[in-house]
Amino acid sequence: MALPAPFLARLKEVFPAGALFTDPADCWVYGYDNSKRQVLPEAVVFPTRHEQAAALVRACHEYKIPLTARGRGTGTTGATVPLFGGVVASFERMDRVLEFSPDNRYIVVEPGITNQALQDYVKPHGFFWPPDPTSAAFCSVGGNLAYNSAGPRAVKYGTPRDNTLGLRAITGAGEEIRTGVYTTKGVVGYDLTRLLIGSEGTLALITEATLKLTPLPETRRTLRAVYRDVGAAAQAIAKIMAQPAVPCALEFIDGNAIDMVRRYSTAGLPEQAGALLMIEVDGFKQAMAPQIDSIRAAADNAGLLEFRVAETQEEVEALWQTRKALSPTLRKIAPKKINEDVVVPVTELPVLIAGLNELSARYGLPIVNFGHAGNGNIHVNLLYDPGKPGEDDKAHACLDEMFGLVLRLRGTLSGEHGVGIEKRDYVDRELDAASLKLMHAIKRQFDPEGILNWHKGFPMA
Amino acid sequence: MALPAPFLARLKEVFPAGALFTDPADCWVYGYDNSKRQVLPEAVVFPTRHEQAAALVRACHEYKIPLTARGRGTGTTGATVPLFGGVVASFERMDRVLEFSPDNRYIVVEPGITNQALQDYVKPHGFFWPPDPTSAAFCSVGGNLAYNSAGPRAVKYGTPRDNTLGLRAITGAGEEIRTGVYTTKGVVGYDLTRLLIGSEGTLALITEATLKLTPLPETRRTLRAVYRDVGAAAQAIAKIMAQPAVPCALEFIDGNAIDMVRRYSTAGLPEQAGALLMIEVDGFKQAMAPQIDSIRAAADNAGLLEFRVAETQEEVEALWQTRKALSPTLRKIAPKKINEDVVVPVTELPVLIAGLNELSARYGLPIVNFGHAGNGNIHVNLLYDPGKPGEDDKAHACLDEMFGLVLRLRGTLSGEHGVGIEKRDYVDRELDAASLKLMHAIKRQFDPEGILNWHKGFPMA
Repeated sequence: MALPAPFLARLKEVFPAGALFTDPADCWVYGYDNSKRQVLPEAVVFPTRHEQAAALVRACHEYKIPLTARGRGTGTTGATVPLFGGVVASFERMDRVLEFSPDNRYIVVEPGITNQALQDYVKPHGFFWPPDPTSAAFCSVGGNLAYNSAGPRAVKYGTPRDNTLGLRAITGAGEEIRTGVYTTKGVVGYDLTRLLIGSEGTLALITEATLKLTPLPETRRTLRAVYRDVGAAAQAIAKIMAQPAVPCALEFIDGNAIDMVRRYSTAGLPEQAGALLMIEVDGFKQAMAPQIDSIRAAADNAGLLEFRVAETQEEVEALWQTRKALSPTLRKIAPKKINEDVVVPVTELPVLIAGLNELSARYGLPIVNFGHAGNGNIHVNLLYDPGKPGEDDKAHACLDEMFGLVLRLRGTLSGEHGVGIEKRDYVDRELDAASLKLMHAIKRQFDPEGILNWHKGFPMA
Repeated sequence: MALPAPFLARLKEVFPAGALFTDPADCWVYGYDNSKRQVLPEAVVFPTRHEQAAALVRACHEYKIPLTARGRGTGTTGATVPLFGGVVASFERMDRVLEFSPDNRYIVVEPGITNQALQDYVKPHGFFWPPDPTSAAFCSVGGNLAYNSAGPRAVKYGTPRDNTLGLRAITGAGEEIRTGVYTTKGVVGYDLTRLLIGSEGTLALITEATLKLTPLPETRRTLRAVYRDVGAAAQAIAKIMAQPAVPCALEFIDGNAIDMVRRYSTAGLPEQAGALLMIEVDGFKQAMAPQIDSIRAAADNAGLLEFRVAETQEEVEALWQTRKALSPTLRKIAPKKINEDVVVPVTELPVLIAGLNELSARYGLPIVNFGHAGNGNIHVNLLYDPGKPGEDDKAHACLDEMFGLVLRLRGTLSGEHGVGIEKRDYVDRELDAASLKLMHAIKRQFDPEGILNWHKGFPMA
């Protein structure tokens, strides 16, 4: 597909030289994300101001040109891959802090600012923004909002939906809207802010976000609990989440992952270790002892093999060693992994892990699991070799059964990665037909020509 | 308007005798709320099961009969007043706990359960549900969700939007939807849960809610800080909100309110008191001292007259005395009050209060202010005598200017009461035309015949 000449002329009016790529060699790298999918867009633009983004959407709307918003391409679902070509709007150069009000605990940023740059900006003033995806050093706040991305801290501090006050955006019809408020309360009109958050660029392009900041805690402590099996760990997770020392991280590693690390490095764990919890608490120094005591009591059960509290930074690092060894180990042993991020109610974790082990045995594919246990959000890593004949099909059949299991356990297909293309065709197994019909209708209202990221997030007829 | 006979016959099929009122004398009391507005519905029904509610909406949809959902009528905005007659669905008899999972920290309830009954149910298990409107003893959870009602605790624990995992509902088209998840994370599809919360019964009837529970803190302490003026208090509020001991209540009372209480009872406050903050912190016993120290440091400024920490339950009550004397005093001195619940960024509080004092002087109407200062959510009480000629008009002209002031300060017209009928005609001064158009479109998608609470929340053409 070639872009119409008058449309290209419009783009050139809006974007100066250097902010508009049309050479395929330049455009190619803007057509992929961390799903490893790649589609060549016809043009890439780099807005630096709201007005440019608005003019861009209006032009795409008028000429019915597909438009895909892109942060830094760290997404894992293909949501920023320009499936139908057209224009990619890369927000990487639109990354200013527009307003910072420490006294009102908010900051207004453009979408291209990285999560890390935002944290660095507010930290000297005693604040942080809770969402902390693993990719924080590279990923953009705009991307975090598009996916409602979170990370370990969500268990205590919530996701972007809990930490965003308002948005400025341009709908697919090219109309500017301002959603939400500058305050932590506000009930006038429908909640369009949270409707846009997590909508994966299908409704509007976000050009400004007013983020709610949280005061940094005085200190943090790291604990590790090792269990004989997943059942004992799950029992502890439920108990930990039910006592008042809400952890700021409650990470889980299953027995397969422990075995894998053990084969390739020193895990420093008891021999019978079948599951491991990494727990962090934060707050005032004087509040550490009662929090640790309360968590220790909740973590204690017949399956607990070891409970350790790090007293020094060195010990913190020693405790995290198994968790940190995991990703490099996974890369070492399998040419390819599918990394899912399903969620189930905490009490269903043992059933989920047992079911995954059964699938792993039946399909002959290693599956290792870790993740944000306090939310029941498990990263299921399915390891396989796409070079082997039939292995890819096997992996996807296994995945299919896994999603069925998750939904039977009243879970959800994604806790933080989103849907994009990867899970699009499974969505109607989770969402009922009436809800999907309403989502389609909302999509059409915001984006009547269907230019914004068509056929992402859920199937579009 | 008389209900069509075949429609009435349908209602009789669905609702047994005693669950369907058509006698105006019976219906009359279901046509009002705490806005003191009242309109007579043609029928009142009392669903006790989801299926009944669903059959009701389908019948109303088919016959195009206005349908207004009602909790306990404690709303202050007229949102449950059946403006166009038709049927009122009172959910007071649909109040069961359907499922309680302490280990997964959620409870599934029907909408008619009162906030208090819910709290009483989960408290023995060590949990609470954070939303705590003043009317908690009487108001229903369904109403809390419809308005996104909060209370003092929202400053630390958020509003219903932050504390609800999922909903079961029937759209105005009579279709059942299940929104959200049973877990604290989930990013599949658009966020219909939060779209329904705060939509004031205009999109769907909620028949079940899965609520996120929070572990009860070990203990709580009450502090009081008295300031020379609002400026000093506002400075303290900003500082308190920027330090890590996030209070679980941060309530504000202005100088006019203090003067008023002083005239009618003993306030026990320093003579020059021009503003007062009631502050509560919760957590572990050992965490009280550092939290109080941190708040004391933040509260200290040149305008601080007195800072007291209650050591006993008696002292707690003494500190709350001024606040508690306020509402009876207001009832004593003015035949009528307009109680607004505007919100402004914390730093704008002194400008807001000064502006309100100017309006009060200019219109010759007393205005006293108190509220949830940590959120910038101020209850503005405009006192007047509707018996005096012209007083009602004066009060509403004053209100109009007040809303203008709030919006100039980047505030919002409502923090927790909602819009209903009372503020409907001001909404387009806060929301932009493009957002309103989208809200209209969403309303039409959920409720194609416009049967659900038409012309509430925002103007419908």
